[in-house]
Amino acid sequence: MQRVRQLIRDVPNFPEPGIMFRDITPVLEDGQAFAQVIDTLAQRYVGQKLTKVAGIESRGFIFAAALAYRLGCGLVIVRKPGKLPRATKSIAYALEYGEGTLHVHADAVGPTDRVILVDDLIATGGTAAAAAKLLADCGAHVTEVAAVIELTALKGRDLLAPLPVHALIAY
Amino acid sequence: MQRVRQLIRDVPNFPEPGIMFRDITPVLEDGQAFAQVIDTLAQRYVGQKLTKVAGIESRGFIFAAALAYRLGCGLVIVRKPGKLPRATKSIAYALEYGEGTLHVHADAVGPTDRVILVDDLIATGGTAAAAAKLLADCGAHVTEVAAVIELTALKGRDLLAPLPVHALIAY
Repeated sequence: MQRVRQLIRDVPNFPEPGIMFRDITPVLEDGQAFAQVIDTLAQRYVGQKLTKVAGIESRGFIFAAALAYRLGCGLVIVRKPGKLPRATKSIAYALEYGEGTLHVHADAVGPTDRVILVDDLIATGGTAAAAAKLLADCGAHVTEVAAVIELTALKGRDLLAPLPVHALIAY
Repeated sequence: MQRVRQLIRDVPNFPEPGIMFRDITPVLEDGQAFAQVIDTLAQRYVGQKLTKVAGIESRGFIFAAALAYRLGCGLVIVRKPGKLPRATKSIAYALEYGEGTLHVHADAVGPTDRVILVDDLIATGGTAAAAAKLLADCGAHVTEVAAVIELTALKGRDLLAPLPVHALIAY
């Protein structure tokens, strides 16, 4: 992951003053690095009899889609309000300022599904925890949260416990 | 593509009254169907010496990411305003009501890049045309627009000409 780590760009004060944004777009733009991320995640999950990979809007879609394709799994998209056209289940959760809501199509997953949840980055874990609960509310068995980056100081792993977190790169 | 076509759900009056939304989420959720979409697109583009696959936020990210992985290309993401953290190039374009703007990181593509542009659906073609012009403004050679669905009555293909459009399913 050395090559991947070197490609990540630190962008200070984005999206708000005081935030150090970890920009993964140079990893995406490098075909070898992007493939290494997907192949490394796939090595962990192949043989685990997963049925679906769930991705959180919208950078999570990128890694979840390629990983779902690699594993031969279906892809479930967890979206912001107003984006999914059919009946959804939803969950509200606390953001640093205010509240967010995530939706999933009500028929997207069910009790026969073993699912990993993918996002690009785990910070406080609040969004991933809400998404995991939403999928569980649909009856799915969520086995793990996978991310490219984990900001360990924000203790998202603690918030998500007992659900395991697997991240390729820790800051 | 018969299986894929059968999975697409028609949702009337979404996102606005009078619009028939073609919902591709059941295709994503079916691992075999999703893989068929990606493999069918890949068959067309393998050997064309593409360097990058560009995806338009946010459903376009899904197909572009899996296709980039399959082809071993880099992925370029074309996003709405305020999402990309570093210096961008942008383009404004007309929407049915008002105006939209798309951004790409200024260093994401350049003159050495041969790129296909991927979105889930081509309707009027306005968004894809703006994205293609944006990539060309960065110096890239955009060879084709690829989509899962084309709404032929809206003549997006005419708007995008002479840039070719390749769609798997036509309505």
